[in-house]
Amino acid sequence: MSYFDAASSAPLHPVARQALLASLDEGWADPARLYREGRKARLLLDAAREAAAEAVGCRPDELVFTGSGTRAVHSGIAGALAGRRRVGRHLIVSAVEHSSVLHSAEALVAEGGSSTEVPVDRTGAVSVAAYADSLRSDTALACLQSANHEVGTVQPVAEVAEACRAVGVPLLVDAAQSLGWGQVEGAWSLLTASAHKWGGPAGVGLLVVRKGVRFAAQGPVDERESGRAPGFENIPAVVAAAASLRAVRTEAAQEALRLRELTERIRARVPKLVPGVDVVGDPVRRLPGIVTFSCLYVDGETLLHELDRAGFSVSSGSSCTSSTLTPSHVLKAMGVLSEGNVRVSLPRGATEEDVERFLAVLPGAVAGVREKLGAQTPVTAVEEESLVVDALGKRCPIPVIELAKVIGDVPVGGTVKVLSDDEAARLDIPAWCEMRGQEYVGEERAPKGTAYLIRRAT
Amino acid sequence: MSYFDAASSAPLHPVARQALLASLDEGWADPARLYREGRKARLLLDAAREAAAEAVGCRPDELVFTGSGTRAVHSGIAGALAGRRRVGRHLIVSAVEHSSVLHSAEALVAEGGSSTEVPVDRTGAVSVAAYADSLRSDTALACLQSANHEVGTVQPVAEVAEACRAVGVPLLVDAAQSLGWGQVEGAWSLLTASAHKWGGPAGVGLLVVRKGVRFAAQGPVDERESGRAPGFENIPAVVAAAASLRAVRTEAAQEALRLRELTERIRARVPKLVPGVDVVGDPVRRLPGIVTFSCLYVDGETLLHELDRAGFSVSSGSSCTSSTLTPSHVLKAMGVLSEGNVRVSLPRGATEEDVERFLAVLPGAVAGVREKLGAQTPVTAVEEESLVVDALGKRCPIPVIELAKVIGDVPVGGTVKVLSDDEAARLDIPAWCEMRGQEYVGEERAPKGTAYLIRRAT
Repeated sequence: MSYFDAASSAPLHPVARQALLASLDEGWADPARLYREGRKARLLLDAAREAAAEAVGCRPDELVFTGSGTRAVHSGIAGALAGRRRVGRHLIVSAVEHSSVLHSAEALVAEGGSSTEVPVDRTGAVSVAAYADSLRSDTALACLQSANHEVGTVQPVAEVAEACRAVGVPLLVDAAQSLGWGQVEGAWSLLTASAHKWGGPAGVGLLVVRKGVRFAAQGPVDERESGRAPGFENIPAVVAAAASLRAVRTEAAQEALRLRELTERIRARVPKLVPGVDVVGDPVRRLPGIVTFSCLYVDGETLLHELDRAGFSVSSGSSCTSSTLTPSHVLKAMGVLSEGNVRVSLPRGATEEDVERFLAVLPGAVAGVREKLGAQTPVTAVEEESLVVDALGKRCPIPVIELAKVIGDVPVGGTVKVLSDDEAARLDIPAWCEMRGQEYVGEERAPKGTAYLIRRAT
Repeated sequence: MSYFDAASSAPLHPVARQALLASLDEGWADPARLYREGRKARLLLDAAREAAAEAVGCRPDELVFTGSGTRAVHSGIAGALAGRRRVGRHLIVSAVEHSSVLHSAEALVAEGGSSTEVPVDRTGAVSVAAYADSLRSDTALACLQSANHEVGTVQPVAEVAEACRAVGVPLLVDAAQSLGWGQVEGAWSLLTASAHKWGGPAGVGLLVVRKGVRFAAQGPVDERESGRAPGFENIPAVVAAAASLRAVRTEAAQEALRLRELTERIRARVPKLVPGVDVVGDPVRRLPGIVTFSCLYVDGETLLHELDRAGFSVSSGSSCTSSTLTPSHVLKAMGVLSEGNVRVSLPRGATEEDVERFLAVLPGAVAGVREKLGAQTPVTAVEEESLVVDALGKRCPIPVIELAKVIGDVPVGGTVKVLSDDEAARLDIPAWCEMRGQEYVGEERAPKGTAYLIRRAT
């Protein structure tokens, strides 16, 4: 098996495993106790905090360990918002943040606060100017990921941090995807991360709050971890997290080069090997190990199953692979094709052979899925000079497949109307038009679902 | 070293260690993913949930894993309160709950709700009648621990649950101290526990919400663990927690008998070996492994250091050993002596030899501390027919030591007034009077600190 989903969770790094084992016998006691076992536990915890702080580039007393990256984000945002409640209750996030950030924003809005989602361009990056424009006098906190988890695009954190600093707004950086590769540059105020993303164990998040940043931890009081992360410290896991962060950092520069070359191969060759592919994300400003592409006329879930059967574990932002039936909010915000979406995120140590085997297997897998899906004949009618395709009740990628089948049936300048009640069509029909050089006219409400109007341009 | 503080954290059970190791390689992937590694992780998680649910005596879909016992309590109380917000915002807790419960109550009060603390008797138990009396028409939730963490007293959970059920109020049981020994009986509605208390790893709590109990998880939305415990699942730890719970349960009946005999020895022999000792907690309805006593004229922190040097790790509810400078809220609620407090909580496998050695070492350790503390001469004066002892600025147990020194200087029927600004004196002076057969008259505010009035009765 080739595991190509490191952005979801990385396999445990050997150093993490070793450190975890070594500290299981020394780190189980309560570090708040004064007896021998407690003192040993405290020493381990302090050393882990120092190592993690050094890797982050902060003071040890600015860093606490939480039970997960999600907890770090939830607690960090809630505490920073509460610390600046007098300033206002406005939060800024980018449109492509991790769900833990977006759900925190929703929670704020549900409580009467407000939030602004800064849009991204087609590569998935925010513009510094747009981010700066969203800063208001009542902005309590701004959030920006260091790099995107679905497409790998690196965000202009240092520049946005500078814009925030200029108006006195703290910036929280979700560094979950990048911390294993290096420190987050710039004058950020808060930072969060998650150990299992860099090969540490599950159950450890980092929350860093710079000295001088107003912060009021929310929820019931608890004395542990400076009052910022309630509950008994998970010291063996924390030790393993810190040790593995140090280890991956030592190898980071070299491994980044190697993985970047491998993902570059995928970026360059997939469009040549597979027709109708859109490689998404910034080609240059990106994480070393992530490459994401979408395949026209392909059902993401079926493609994932095919790849799994061929021995490849990848993930997808296609709507049909999630429980929500809507495409990934990241792809949506980027305005790119979501159907047949595949994210390859290489773990450290991924081999050239595995990548080559993936490139060998992919075309057949895509072709197989397309063949299965392409058999049906679209149901069409002519209405008000448009050819109408009734794709109601059909799920992604069928509406786009049917559109592609019938576009040749109208003359250049003629229009096709696709009726669809699948949420993915809203994203995928315009994306198809862009890829195919056709003109997307717009959408309107139909008696059932939505009517998407396309004018044949070529 | 003899580790006698299992109630704080138990050493990792061999089965937990073994299960953790075995699942490190299989349980690191995201159980929400459909590929092979994800499916393996999901299988492990599901199996762990089933095993834990069986041990608790609930359905698997009623149980979620949280990042700690404290998190389980915080989330359980917040969710249950929110689920019944229409009924009211009144919470009932016993006065001797774990701090995570009491802090949740404080958080509710800070947000405009109300809470009632049900008092306990001198053994640390609530009375079912008093608990039932505290139920109101606006009571959203009631909380009661299964057994006390500081003195081991078992609470009448089944009877209180019945009283709650009769009026439709859900009861949350904090079973942190008892779950390793057996299921919690009775018609409880919610239950919380913490794996490292039974020999499982840190980083795992259990939150059980019975079907039909109104529950609205608070905080930002997260899909994992039925939306009740945000963050990436820590599967190796969860597997280890479930496996070790099963393991300790298998041994529970036999080990309980053995530990009960050992703690009974301590209960019976410490008062004979050490003068001026009060063994606290219920002598019969108690956990097998916990025994707690307080020693007159002893500074708890110094005694702990002496015992640590002699190779025994115990904890204390004395004020001087905590960062808050107030005695344990449990001892305070019981109205028992807090000075020189020692909690012995035997881990599974504690040996008779270790307990005998403890009993051999303790008298000398106590005598040594008493000798160091007893040298000073009290500063006294006579004022309004009372002998006044100025113990201002002196910390526990000095005020009581000075009281004991001067009581013989007044005739029977005469009074001593102790001036003290140490919070522990409020508990320890009345407790001393009770132990010594003297009459505690009461306290009044003094220009500095508090004046405690004692009448010599014998």
